[in-house]
Amino acid sequence: MRGAIGIFDSGVGGLTVLTALRKRLPGQDYLYLGDTARLPYGSKSETTIRRYALKAAAHLFNHDVRLLVVACNTASAHALPALAKISPVPVLGVIEPGVRAALTSGARRIAVIGTEGTIRSRAYQDSLRRRAPEVSVTAAPCPLFVPLAEEGWSDHPITDQVAEIYLRPLLDSGIETIILGCTHYPLLRPSLARVAGPGISLIDSADAVTDAVVQRFRGAPTGRGGAGQVVLHLTDASDRFRRITRTILGGDPEHLEVVDL
Amino acid sequence: MRGAIGIFDSGVGGLTVLTALRKRLPGQDYLYLGDTARLPYGSKSETTIRRYALKAAAHLFNHDVRLLVVACNTASAHALPALAKISPVPVLGVIEPGVRAALTSGARRIAVIGTEGTIRSRAYQDSLRRRAPEVSVTAAPCPLFVPLAEEGWSDHPITDQVAEIYLRPLLDSGIETIILGCTHYPLLRPSLARVAGPGISLIDSADAVTDAVVQRFRGAPTGRGGAGQVVLHLTDASDRFRRITRTILGGDPEHLEVVDL
Repeated sequence: MRGAIGIFDSGVGGLTVLTALRKRLPGQDYLYLGDTARLPYGSKSETTIRRYALKAAAHLFNHDVRLLVVACNTASAHALPALAKISPVPVLGVIEPGVRAALTSGARRIAVIGTEGTIRSRAYQDSLRRRAPEVSVTAAPCPLFVPLAEEGWSDHPITDQVAEIYLRPLLDSGIETIILGCTHYPLLRPSLARVAGPGISLIDSADAVTDAVVQRFRGAPTGRGGAGQVVLHLTDASDRFRRITRTILGGDPEHLEVVDL
Repeated sequence: MRGAIGIFDSGVGGLTVLTALRKRLPGQDYLYLGDTARLPYGSKSETTIRRYALKAAAHLFNHDVRLLVVACNTASAHALPALAKISPVPVLGVIEPGVRAALTSGARRIAVIGTEGTIRSRAYQDSLRRRAPEVSVTAAPCPLFVPLAEEGWSDHPITDQVAEIYLRPLLDSGIETIILGCTHYPLLRPSLARVAGPGISLIDSADAVTDAVVQRFRGAPTGRGGAGQVVLHLTDASDRFRRITRTILGGDPEHLEVVDL
């Protein structure tokens, strides 16, 4: 996979980034690594998250990727500087592209939702304050959203009610934009949009990082293979992960391999 | 911790077993290992679960425990024979005690609920059929119960609705007893009892394995220390796990150490 775009996520949620990238850069090769044996990262401590992210990145570097996309918000929030320090190739996280997209929308009151790890890291909040001190920023962890998405309840009355509980305080405080700070959350878009209402824009960090990658590769040569090959490496491939993979990709992956980091 | 009772769980849910044991055998020492860095086990494959369980058990053997209690249903379901094979001390899982307790209740229609891993393993179902071929057995995975318990929504309208969705088909089929095949589920007892109604008995596998340990130790000498010392080893100690630990123990643990397996 020399020259492939490497994408790393704690699980299979980052496949939303892979799907978006393939659509816009179909000639590139992709190597996706999902650390499904140790997910979720979002509930774990900074030390553990960083250790896992460094191991996962080393695996992709060993496969000579040309770029490392950290599709996992929690890993982006906690491990990006550590990853950039050891990386032989450029590293792109989801935080900065998400923040840029939110600010481009012109919103003055922005909310960030994500896992406990992402919200606790203050990565989004600090980046927003640094770039736009005049913008008001609120944040809320939404720990049940990932399990709800993985249960396939993307468009379900229970998800609507949970979203109402998590989002109501943000909505009542007059926010205009919500950054979906977790790659799973776009899967819940129907519920989230319904609860947020038509006046609120939802920023998908998967879209935002895709834009950033596309900008970087516009006109650049494709990978060695250049055939748009897609390889999935998972550290665990239970029926559950295979099922979610199929849901996100819209079919079975061409090449799926279970790897031990 | 030479001579302590070793308790192993994928996370902190097994602390319900520790709490029950301490009440009934207060003179024993306890070493509890929660593999919080790699939880949950329930969504992962048999191979991964077995690898993790063997590593965790080795850690407890190195600390010279006198007995290994596998408080995790998923690990009991997938790894008990492998653990028994390498263990220098007796190994007790939660499945057989849970099955015995359910059959003792005299029920002829028994349902088992648990993680996807536990239900897929068919460990409960096979044991019930082996011991009581005349009993009718149904089973259902309930993947959202652990996240709901960890969110602290033990007694919450959302949990009632989710329980209604998961349990309704079982209840409509006329079951008399439900085995709570996951150490987290007793935390949801208020919701589960409400949805199941007064006619249905809920068997707690933590209680059942506690009975089995107490039987084994009745009249036996206490551990070397004999002072009822309790030590917690966690592979990750995020704020979240510390909070859940406090909730289950009803206060801060005396000795908590983060260990790397």
